[in-house]
Amino acid sequence: MATPMSQYLSEFIATGMLILLGNGVVAGALLNKSKAQGAGWGVITAAWGLAVLIGIYIAGPTSGAIMNPALTIALAAIGKLSWAVVPGFVLAQIAGAFAGATLVWLAYLAHWRVSDDPALKLAIFCTAPAIRDTKANVLTEVIGTFALTFGALAIGANTLAPGMGPLGVGLLVVVVGMSLGGPTGYAINPARDLGPRIAHALLPIAGKGGSDWAYAWVPVVAPIVGALIGAFAFQAAYG
Amino acid sequence: MATPMSQYLSEFIATGMLILLGNGVVAGALLNKSKAQGAGWGVITAAWGLAVLIGIYIAGPTSGAIMNPALTIALAAIGKLSWAVVPGFVLAQIAGAFAGATLVWLAYLAHWRVSDDPALKLAIFCTAPAIRDTKANVLTEVIGTFALTFGALAIGANTLAPGMGPLGVGLLVVVVGMSLGGPTGYAINPARDLGPRIAHALLPIAGKGGSDWAYAWVPVVAPIVGALIGAFAFQAAYG
Amino acid sequence: MATPMSQYLSEFIATGMLILLGNGVVAGALLNKSKAQGAGWGVITAAWGLAVLIGIYIAGPTSGAIMNPALTIALAAIGKLSWAVVPGFVLAQIAGAFAGATLVWLAYLAHWRVSDDPALKLAIFCTAPAIRDTKANVLTEVIGTFALTFGALAIGANTLAPGMGPLGVGLLVVVVGMSLGGPTGYAINPARDLGPRIAHALLPIAGKGGSDWAYAWVPVVAPIVGALIGAFAFQAAYG
Amino acid sequence: MATPMSQYLSEFIATGMLILLGNGVVAGALLNKSKAQGAGWGVITAAWGLAVLIGIYIAGPTSGAIMNPALTIALAAIGKLSWAVVPGFVLAQIAGAFAGATLVWLAYLAHWRVSDDPALKLAIFCTAPAIRDTKANVLTEVIGTFALTFGALAIGANTLAPGMGPLGVGLLVVVVGMSLGGPTGYAINPARDLGPRIAHALLPIAGKGGSDWAYAWVPVVAPIVGALIGAFAFQAAYG
Repeated sequence: MATPMSQYLSEFIATGMLILLGNGVVAGALLNKSKAQGAGWGVITAAWGLAVLIGIYIAGPTSGAIMNPALTIALAAIGKLSWAVVPGFVLAQIAGAFAGATLVWLAYLAHWRVSDDPALKLAIFCTAPAIRDTKANVLTEVIGTFALTFGALAIGANTLAPGMGPLGVGLLVVVVGMSLGGPTGYAINPARDLGPRIAHALLPIAGKGGSDWAYAWVPVVAPIVGALIGAFAFQAAYG
Repeated sequence: MATPMSQYLSEFIATGMLILLGNGVVAGALLNKSKAQGAGWGVITAAWGLAVLIGIYIAGPTSGAIMNPALTIALAAIGKLSWAVVPGFVLAQIAGAFAGATLVWLAYLAHWRVSDDPALKLAIFCTAPAIRDTKANVLTEVIGTFALTFGALAIGANTLAPGMGPLGVGLLVVVVGMSLGGPTGYAINPARDLGPRIAHALLPIAGKGGSDWAYAWVPVVAPIVGALIGAFAFQAAYG
Repeated sequence: MATPMSQYLSEFIATGMLILLGNGVVAGALLNKSKAQGAGWGVITAAWGLAVLIGIYIAGPTSGAIMNPALTIALAAIGKLSWAVVPGFVLAQIAGAFAGATLVWLAYLAHWRVSDDPALKLAIFCTAPAIRDTKANVLTEVIGTFALTFGALAIGANTLAPGMGPLGVGLLVVVVGMSLGGPTGYAINPARDLGPRIAHALLPIAGKGGSDWAYAWVPVVAPIVGALIGAFAFQAAYG
Repeated sequence: MATPMSQYLSEFIATGMLILLGNGVVAGALLNKSKAQGAGWGVITAAWGLAVLIGIYIAGPTSGAIMNPALTIALAAIGKLSWAVVPGFVLAQIAGAFAGATLVWLAYLAHWRVSDDPALKLAIFCTAPAIRDTKANVLTEVIGTFALTFGALAIGANTLAPGMGPLGVGLLVVVVGMSLGGPTGYAINPARDLGPRIAHALLPIAGKGGSDWAYAWVPVVAPIVGALIGAFAFQAAYG
């Protein structure tokens, strides 16, 4: 097994790749003059799932490729990960997400100044609810992360098709996004939202607006709650 | 092998997840202000197939992940499942579908009141024919469930690519939906239609209309007929 | 190994399923009031590829699931199939395609009378060129079937990922359709075109027009030429 | 292991198939009267990834199916390929891309004269930036090829799902295109751009314009830089 430090490095790299490809598809679909502009919900959700797949290929053998503080905490809570590495995993994941978002800014460097809407630019970095309603938004993120966690644990436990695990989890992220992403844009991962939001706040993005910090706690807290429910439910049913 | 009770629990959970993700994508594609609004037929059919895949990962090792009373009855009719567990499977599947539909209502909680059309809201829960013509609607559901059943049995019997079984069945559901879903919205599964229809009738959904009980027997009876034809045909050709 | 008669039965069933799902998606995308209307090129090409995948699951272990007279002849020409079974394979494939097209007519029974354009109805059964230019149309079908044959032989010969063969061939059909289907609608298979064209001529389809027999030889002859080129080229490079 | 000459032949064939299917989907999506016209970003990026998958099936066992001079050079730089075969690989890849582009011209032969825009015709052969800004365009191609190279090396090194390698790399190309292709059309491969650009310059394409040689160095140089960064970064993290 890998050392904690090499695990943190793997979580950093894999989460960076996840956000480079995940935020990248949103940039491509939303920014003016992008050849991918208007690509739509199918392309966005497919790319996020494939981004998770690539992250799993990178970090799976070293750190398990968790790439998600809510899953990290939930795995520790059910005894599948040592609490001792949780802070390192979480920090590496948020730092990786920050780095990935910075690369997206650079990859689309010429396109920020030809797009006007600051809310659209923020949406490339982090999530925002379609209807601002705290209770409903929390509920959506809890249910989405519950489905992600329960499904990922089921795929990990499945011994009938072991080599299909990475693809299975990638497709799980595709379908959770397609099916439960409509109301809040499916953070279902605190690092995926917080890291890029910090990047949005710090980077000199042409024509950016505020970083909507009032909403920032929802995609951090609700996914943790959903992941804990999912992990304990899976443990109760199949542990 | 698992106990009947743990099999019923698995069918309940897997069918719940199937409907959470399956009905979820329809909610995302149809409800106003959803970020997935207008996602289209490709996204809807892909998500339903992937929802089946996740259900198979969850319940495959325990109960076979049938998630469908028509398939359950057909498997019993050809001797691949004990008739003794059929009532438990069917009840668990309908109850799971009810639970999954309830989670969809909660996941999209803020969106029901901003959408007007009651028929569209019903369509998120259960199927309705594009052209109301009982004979033709029955025929469509019979043919669709025949294809599903024959294909699923062929995938299950295939020994060349055993680890690909779950993905194969998921992709089968994608293509049956894409190709044969146009006329009736492809129930091809009594639990998928009946459980959410009961949920629609009971839940306090903002601005809902009637639950179209006059049509409710078609997506129950026709899939059972189609599954029986498919199972006996497969048995005759390859049994 | 299976008897010739059981192989013919398998080719009949698998080609029937291929056309049920393949012609089905075109019906869903083109007919008025279909819930899949306007589904688009991505859905059509994905469904055709998945239809091939399901056919392979059905007939792969028995007959090799060729489902295509051009491939059948080409495999015999390079010594991978006995010439003695070729007539039986080809007849079974055309008969299966006829049966599958008939099921599509039944599955969409209420929709033929609400659609007007006879050319659109014919397009659900068989192919027609976007620009009628015999030399160019032949060239397109030759190149498309060359790519299909060369790719399928490469996938079959690949020993690095043996269980992935069925999915590989399904995805090959997806990409050949996406990339080379634009000019002629990619028959790349005489049975896929001729069987449903005969069904179109014989079935009492509401509001149908002529079956365009003047073009019918192109999707029969050109795929055979393309498959022969592909098979001999593969043999020369990797045989 | 195969002889260098048989490896060059494999690289020629696989890159030819890659460009036949890759440039083919752009032709189908852009040319007037094509049945695939307007197919969109999801279809284009899916087909390019599947085209890579087919190339891997063809040349994987012989030459590793690199199909990309930037990856070829980067693999040599980290000691995974002999420098002695690099010139042969690169020439074979560019020649194969030229041949594939020529087949695309023939497959869509009747469609060039019914389309007007010369820039659109050039876009079927090679890439052009959405916003002409040399620094930004180079940066985009560097980041895209970095992601491709790092991801491909991770997939190749992964021992948990070895049979999934070809599909993994195909899906990597899908997501790199979806997510990072917006600004420049993602060459991420000098042969993919240069071979078809030469074909565009030489072939008697109806109504063609100039071949935009001023931009031609960017999709050659930047992918090499990105692949070298990706390869050395992977070596440093996981070598």
